[in-house]
Amino acid sequence: MEETTFAVLGTGGIGRRTLEVSQHKDALTPVAACDRHGTAIDFDGLDVDELLAATEGNIDGEPRDDEVATDGGTGATAADGEGGIKQHGEDRGVVASSQARPSEDPIRDVIDRGDRIDAVLLALPNYEHDFIPRVADRFVESGYSGVMIDVLKRSRVIDMLDDRSDEFREQGITFICGAGATPGFLTGAAALAAQSFVEVEAVDIRWGVGLKSGYEDNRGTVREDIAHLPEYDIETVRDLSETEIEAIIDEHDGVIEFEDMEHADDVLLERAGVCDAEDVRVGGILDVRSDEKPTTTTVSVTGTTFDGETATNTFRLDDATSMEANVNGPALGYLKAGVRRNRAGEYGVFGPAELMPGF
Amino acid sequence: MEETTFAVLGTGGIGRRTLEVSQHKDALTPVAACDRHGTAIDFDGLDVDELLAATEGNIDGEPRDDEVATDGGTGATAADGEGGIKQHGEDRGVVASSQARPSEDPIRDVIDRGDRIDAVLLALPNYEHDFIPRVADRFVESGYSGVMIDVLKRSRVIDMLDDRSDEFREQGITFICGAGATPGFLTGAAALAAQSFVEVEAVDIRWGVGLKSGYEDNRGTVREDIAHLPEYDIETVRDLSETEIEAIIDEHDGVIEFEDMEHADDVLLERAGVCDAEDVRVGGILDVRSDEKPTTTTVSVTGTTFDGETATNTFRLDDATSMEANVNGPALGYLKAGVRRNRAGEYGVFGPAELMPGF
Repeated sequence: MEETTFAVLGTGGIGRRTLEVSQHKDALTPVAACDRHGTAIDFDGLDVDELLAATEGNIDGEPRDDEVATDGGTGATAADGEGGIKQHGEDRGVVASSQARPSEDPIRDVIDRGDRIDAVLLALPNYEHDFIPRVADRFVESGYSGVMIDVLKRSRVIDMLDDRSDEFREQGITFICGAGATPGFLTGAAALAAQSFVEVEAVDIRWGVGLKSGYEDNRGTVREDIAHLPEYDIETVRDLSETEIEAIIDEHDGVIEFEDMEHADDVLLERAGVCDAEDVRVGGILDVRSDEKPTTTTVSVTGTTFDGETATNTFRLDDATSMEANVNGPALGYLKAGVRRNRAGEYGVFGPAELMPGF
Repeated sequence: MEETTFAVLGTGGIGRRTLEVSQHKDALTPVAACDRHGTAIDFDGLDVDELLAATEGNIDGEPRDDEVATDGGTGATAADGEGGIKQHGEDRGVVASSQARPSEDPIRDVIDRGDRIDAVLLALPNYEHDFIPRVADRFVESGYSGVMIDVLKRSRVIDMLDDRSDEFREQGITFICGAGATPGFLTGAAALAAQSFVEVEAVDIRWGVGLKSGYEDNRGTVREDIAHLPEYDIETVRDLSETEIEAIIDEHDGVIEFEDMEHADDVLLERAGVCDAEDVRVGGILDVRSDEKPTTTTVSVTGTTFDGETATNTFRLDDATSMEANVNGPALGYLKAGVRRNRAGEYGVFGPAELMPGF
């Protein structure tokens, strides 16, 4: 297997765990990691243990306007909503690692080495819908050619990336969007489960997350999930204080149920030809007071077979698989799939379900 | 979506049903079908309804040495073991269709039009392990460039195809092997389910097939399954008469259970980097006296997450999905995936699980 080098933009929850999981993967070498404070680059492979130990605890959940919206030197954390970087001792963020150097423009540092980086994982916050797309623009403008991959959840970002697909193609960029647990892992499962059918009637995605001990590390995820409640949206949630977030959690006794979430699963399954977006339903239950999952994450695909039977195939993730495992494994899996596409000359925007067998 | 043209070699159970299922798929046009009697070719798209109606009932389950081993003009039926073609009225086999013409060398007819055929589905019997590989040789020798795909089950054929991978690559052939229900569909599911884990300890594939009303159409499959019983192998089973097959079925009261089958699932999952071949177990239950499945087809993947949990993800096919639906949908899905690879310049031998996100 040919070696794949990758960079992680953002060293919050997802960025850090992606680095950790990559140590278990063959032929996959992390060569760069940055946050808004600085950049660690080593083409012999980052010392992930040192980096993680040095930056441990560098996660909080509060979006900060001025930082998120800057030139890309931002980018502390997780694409699914985890927040910025806390100070760590005297240094701040990734700069606490002996491998990192402070930088005025950490993303530029990565871009400048782009010719030796096969893939860039955007583990950045996206409280502004166009933040990830704007970071992509910087890579396009600077002539980067390779894979870019995000683990975003919301449908509307896909459209923004789609608007850039001509530029990606001209530039030789294979952009894979939504490659975390949902939509990534679960739409992939749906696309596969759909292979029994000639017509798919419904895709029902239900997730369960128990986040007691992981709560502190995932405040941003909780915040972003709250934005899916009918009374809120991503803009109003950005402006809530931590205290207000806690109050919402208390109102729900720590267990928040979500229905008809604006997850990109629908548009990505439609792109992949699996079904109409309107036939996809995404919901879930988040329990921040228990590590037990309140419900088993399940993908159910109902369709009609060529011989006229209606049936439902199911894909279930064991309750013992953490949200983190189900985000980061698939993200790296799709990253490798993307590098393969990129090397074969396939450019543009891809959803995870498009990397499955064609429906 | 760019149009994909494909040919089916063999018009037994799998060949016929693949033609049928393809009518439900977008941008997929069957342009050629042949059996050992003749060839139907139409680049505007075959009239599948006419072809299926004209050749209905043309299935039996007895392998015939002299025919199976010939120059490739053979090839009545299903790669998973269905047999030859029965006479139909005055004409025989596909020639009963008004779209077909008798031919001394039907495979040659297809090869000669290869430049207009994106993919060739080999729905041929393989009672001799090297029959499919030898048909592939004919395509290589004649300069065909495109996708070839089979739905074989047995491990040892993969090795024979692998021996030809240099030739495939030189020739621009993307060969996808084992793309039916098992190994195709189920190893794909296993490769996906494995994404939660950093180490996979076991893949357990259990299938159930209820084949009462479908028995006549699938005698070859039953015969090939019997070859997996400890007392038999593929050579001894070839020589059994239908009466002897029936006697074996009676001995088991119509319900035959299989353990540790020589299915290519193991080698294909190892190729895809999911786990060691020895960690894969395939078994199943075949009930030829009921249409109810005796057990639900289930793929269980047990592994360890990056955060140290051991867990089992599962993929279950609804009992209402027939074996036929689970062979032919995935076969065409992988065919489309293969054409995409081929157009991107990726040649050689691929297992279905290699078309999933990289583990």
